[in-house]
Amino acid sequence: MNIGMIGLGQMGEPMALNLLKAGHQLLLCDINASAVERVVVAGQGQAQAIATPKEIAEMAPNYIISMLPSSPHVQEVYLGEQGLLMGKLSKATFFIDCSTIDPKVSRLVREAAGHSGLAMVDAPVSGGTGAAKDGTLTFMVGGTDAEFAQVKPILELMGKNIVHCGPSGNGQVAKVANNMLLAVTMIGVSEAMCLGTQLGMDPTVLAGIINTSSGRCWSSDTYNPYPGVNPNAPASRDYQGGFSNQLMLKDVMLATEAAKAVNQPTPLASLAQVVYQTIYNQGLGDLDFSSVIKLFQKN
Amino acid sequence: MNIGMIGLGQMGEPMALNLLKAGHQLLLCDINASAVERVVVAGQGQAQAIATPKEIAEMAPNYIISMLPSSPHVQEVYLGEQGLLMGKLSKATFFIDCSTIDPKVSRLVREAAGHSGLAMVDAPVSGGTGAAKDGTLTFMVGGTDAEFAQVKPILELMGKNIVHCGPSGNGQVAKVANNMLLAVTMIGVSEAMCLGTQLGMDPTVLAGIINTSSGRCWSSDTYNPYPGVNPNAPASRDYQGGFSNQLMLKDVMLATEAAKAVNQPTPLASLAQVVYQTIYNQGLGDLDFSSVIKLFQKN
Amino acid sequence: MNIGMIGLGQMGEPMALNLLKAGHQLLLCDINASAVERVVVAGQGQAQAIATPKEIAEMAPNYIISMLPSSPHVQEVYLGEQGLLMGKLSKATFFIDCSTIDPKVSRLVREAAGHSGLAMVDAPVSGGTGAAKDGTLTFMVGGTDAEFAQVKPILELMGKNIVHCGPSGNGQVAKVANNMLLAVTMIGVSEAMCLGTQLGMDPTVLAGIINTSSGRCWSSDTYNPYPGVNPNAPASRDYQGGFSNQLMLKDVMLATEAAKAVNQPTPLASLAQVVYQTIYNQGLGDLDFSSVIKLFQKN
Amino acid sequence: MNIGMIGLGQMGEPMALNLLKAGHQLLLCDINASAVERVVVAGQGQAQAIATPKEIAEMAPNYIISMLPSSPHVQEVYLGEQGLLMGKLSKATFFIDCSTIDPKVSRLVREAAGHSGLAMVDAPVSGGTGAAKDGTLTFMVGGTDAEFAQVKPILELMGKNIVHCGPSGNGQVAKVANNMLLAVTMIGVSEAMCLGTQLGMDPTVLAGIINTSSGRCWSSDTYNPYPGVNPNAPASRDYQGGFSNQLMLKDVMLATEAAKAVNQPTPLASLAQVVYQTIYNQGLGDLDFSSVIKLFQKN
Repeated sequence: MNIGMIGLGQMGEPMALNLLKAGHQLLLCDINASAVERVVVAGQGQAQAIATPKEIAEMAPNYIISMLPSSPHVQEVYLGEQGLLMGKLSKATFFIDCSTIDPKVSRLVREAAGHSGLAMVDAPVSGGTGAAKDGTLTFMVGGTDAEFAQVKPILELMGKNIVHCGPSGNGQVAKVANNMLLAVTMIGVSEAMCLGTQLGMDPTVLAGIINTSSGRCWSSDTYNPYPGVNPNAPASRDYQGGFSNQLMLKDVMLATEAAKAVNQPTPLASLAQVVYQTIYNQGLGDLDFSSVIKLFQKN
Repeated sequence: MNIGMIGLGQMGEPMALNLLKAGHQLLLCDINASAVERVVVAGQGQAQAIATPKEIAEMAPNYIISMLPSSPHVQEVYLGEQGLLMGKLSKATFFIDCSTIDPKVSRLVREAAGHSGLAMVDAPVSGGTGAAKDGTLTFMVGGTDAEFAQVKPILELMGKNIVHCGPSGNGQVAKVANNMLLAVTMIGVSEAMCLGTQLGMDPTVLAGIINTSSGRCWSSDTYNPYPGVNPNAPASRDYQGGFSNQLMLKDVMLATEAAKAVNQPTPLASLAQVVYQTIYNQGLGDLDFSSVIKLFQKN
Repeated sequence: MNIGMIGLGQMGEPMALNLLKAGHQLLLCDINASAVERVVVAGQGQAQAIATPKEIAEMAPNYIISMLPSSPHVQEVYLGEQGLLMGKLSKATFFIDCSTIDPKVSRLVREAAGHSGLAMVDAPVSGGTGAAKDGTLTFMVGGTDAEFAQVKPILELMGKNIVHCGPSGNGQVAKVANNMLLAVTMIGVSEAMCLGTQLGMDPTVLAGIINTSSGRCWSSDTYNPYPGVNPNAPASRDYQGGFSNQLMLKDVMLATEAAKAVNQPTPLASLAQVVYQTIYNQGLGDLDFSSVIKLFQKN
Repeated sequence: MNIGMIGLGQMGEPMALNLLKAGHQLLLCDINASAVERVVVAGQGQAQAIATPKEIAEMAPNYIISMLPSSPHVQEVYLGEQGLLMGKLSKATFFIDCSTIDPKVSRLVREAAGHSGLAMVDAPVSGGTGAAKDGTLTFMVGGTDAEFAQVKPILELMGKNIVHCGPSGNGQVAKVANNMLLAVTMIGVSEAMCLGTQLGMDPTVLAGIINTSSGRCWSSDTYNPYPGVNPNAPASRDYQGGFSNQLMLKDVMLATEAAKAVNQPTPLASLAQVVYQTIYNQGLGDLDFSSVIKLFQKN
């Protein structure tokens, strides 16, 4: 099949490579020319660079997948002057937006696509760059049952866990709610690890107890922020790689923004946002978000 | 063996029954006469009521186990006028305090016992009344290696997970750090569940996604605060039973108190304390602590 | 002079009446027909109702003043299909926006006016409906020195304190920063009054001490949230009248929104937003914002 | 009259000098020998050093004033082995404790004095070292009407504002409630000043607007944390002098401690405590507490 792919960042590039591997033809667009070039080369004739989203849409591929950094990018790529929805469109094209963005914007773009008679789902991912390479991402899909059925086989080429979350926008809601909780548990684990070690406990013993007790959570048993507790976690390699403070800050902001829109109070998440804002302002935005523990450690 | 048992509350009574079942003789003391009577009857001659802790200590049992509600109770039972350390003591008696209290108080009492040449460990538990009945509690033990070796066989009659946390007081530290984290994750899950459902997601679908993603935690996968998500959790029976808001408030206070003493900032836990204080003040102190979600649900 | 007046709410109506009193002719527009009618009647021939903002602008009055509830209203009134900037405009018309809105939106609208060669300032007010009636409002003006000089005489007909805050948008910044601080001090006073009275102090004695000490603030000495302390404050009349929780929530949201845009952490204001959101969700959005003390009082 | 004076720190020493100036004889005790020596020299025969509080009490002065850093010091000085209440006491001696401490400890010590038939008031001060030197302190007195009447003339030698706050302990309550509010308003002003200046306002203009609006407070109009706004405030001299972060942290801890005891939720004060704890942990405990603004300024 022909598949358009807009956005070849850290996640989009390996996703595109997995589609190539499955034998599909790709139409690529990204402002980063060298990323486009890498995928074109890897495609050995099956992938070509296209100048604008609008032109890709006018070539009427079966699917167009977008993987973009934030809400304004998605609005530009779909609704901007050279946007996907601005040209002559084939109703056979199906849009899949894998970006993590404001659920409101997801629904707005989906509505605009609908006005042109086109199908679209939101399908943000979790799992990080490792899972993108291995094709083991989780996709959280928002759309009708029929839409879900139609995109599932394509998404399975890039992920292993494809979940239907409800109507349009709900993929974003699931992503945003999960990451908001993650933002909170990581700070909670950081406070608990600092308190326990300050009071004289060995960090590995403490984590071991928490992980078999009611405090157990992914931030403690898989991604512990205390260096050395999980040898493969970013904390054990100076917080390099992983999911940055900047991206976590963006996601918590999406969550509190969404909460405001429905008058939902979120005290711990609101305070968590301040905490990630603080570590970001200290110039540590590029470190993995488990480095938030640095705010609670004594000098 | 002869074992003294001070404190026959919701946890202490089933612990005593498990010791009887294992064939030990018990010396019992509690202000609740009917609890004492129940265990005496169950003991069929192997359990007797004793008027004061002091008298129990003077009868020189092999072990004396205390299971009390708070720091002042422990101080009274050990150091009060009729306290365990106030009579003529046999150096063969070993003290095991299973109460959840301030680590400072644990270390203070342990020191007082040491002045009399007596051994003592702190060994707070986790697992709740169900685990107390089934003999499957987790014991977090603070003491020397030799002390740990000596109490382990006794604690195994009441629990299945006996963990050595380090020197005296560290059992309390582990307990307090775990419960502080639990206080935070439960509110975090409550906020995430409310946000997601407000935005239109089905609570069970949302929990399912969180439980296979990075937001995964005990408060979400085992004890979800949203009614109906975990059929066996208190949320699915009007928040009856379980671990009360009042007890959770007490434990977070212990944690922030301990944090203050070592100058450890704990922003989320401090805010969590305010949240549990608020629900307690609303007259809901007796409900299970997962009822904290009520503060975030719309009327 | 001819003055257009868009928005005749609780603040706009008395402001219009003060302009009439000073001898000016008014062109009025508001969706609330009875408010328009009241001012027309009061105008005795000097005030007339006009159907749309666009028509008012095309009548080329010397000034057009807008006093609207929120950012979207301002965007609609200036940039909507029937908006002020959509018709044939006279360069002699000067725009004054007195609404409290997002500084970003202020600057955006000001820019749009500039594209048409028109002058505009943002001039949000403080002082409430009483000051609007008495013509004693404070105006916080954002614009150039020349613009400030030109609007000052007009604003003095409605206020007594006309402050130049810097370039366009800075009137909003001053307003938003002040109200964010007010949101915090009101909760701070509420906590202090509740703590002191819970510990046995008379509320008036406590307020008296605070008001002559370093805790002194407007929320304590002029607008104390504890009933009876300031006989003229809303707290002494069941929190009726005054500045509602809903409006305070809107203003704190503007502040935290503006803070996000410049990566400014505001921990207390973020938590204050959650607190006003909570009292709003309890159905108390219409009460004066000093009723926030209800969240801290015992039942 | 003969007056005992225990505690010659930054506040106690100038207070003692003012008593000397008024013609009284002093009995002095402090562990800092050079402070004692300075006052003895200044006393020109009217002041003598005494080894222990107990000995001072046994010399039966008319009043004994204590000015100590914290609750444990007060307990030691009154109830310790060499404490004021441990010797042979004259019922003519009247105790005045000017320390800022936990109201519970105030009431406990007052009760102990009462058992010996002695009168005592708590009378913490506000105003800082400048006011101590000038004799213009504010004293917040907790005691009966008769006790207040008896201590007022003595306190007037050191202060100009002597306020009766109610029964024993209420002096502490007033102090603690005021300082808790101050802790909050200072952070609130810091957030508002940072937000406003980040958004492009001049700090002095912004403070000027706040100081004539509803955000007005002592932390803004007298002690503004932004350098240069109040030329005489610590912010304008690198946060030297003034009231240290460490002392503010101590006072907020007293407040949240007192709040816990009466189940009073104090969300902003609890978060403020975390904030002062954080700046203290950054090694800035000795700077004036208005330096808390450093946490919110960008690098």
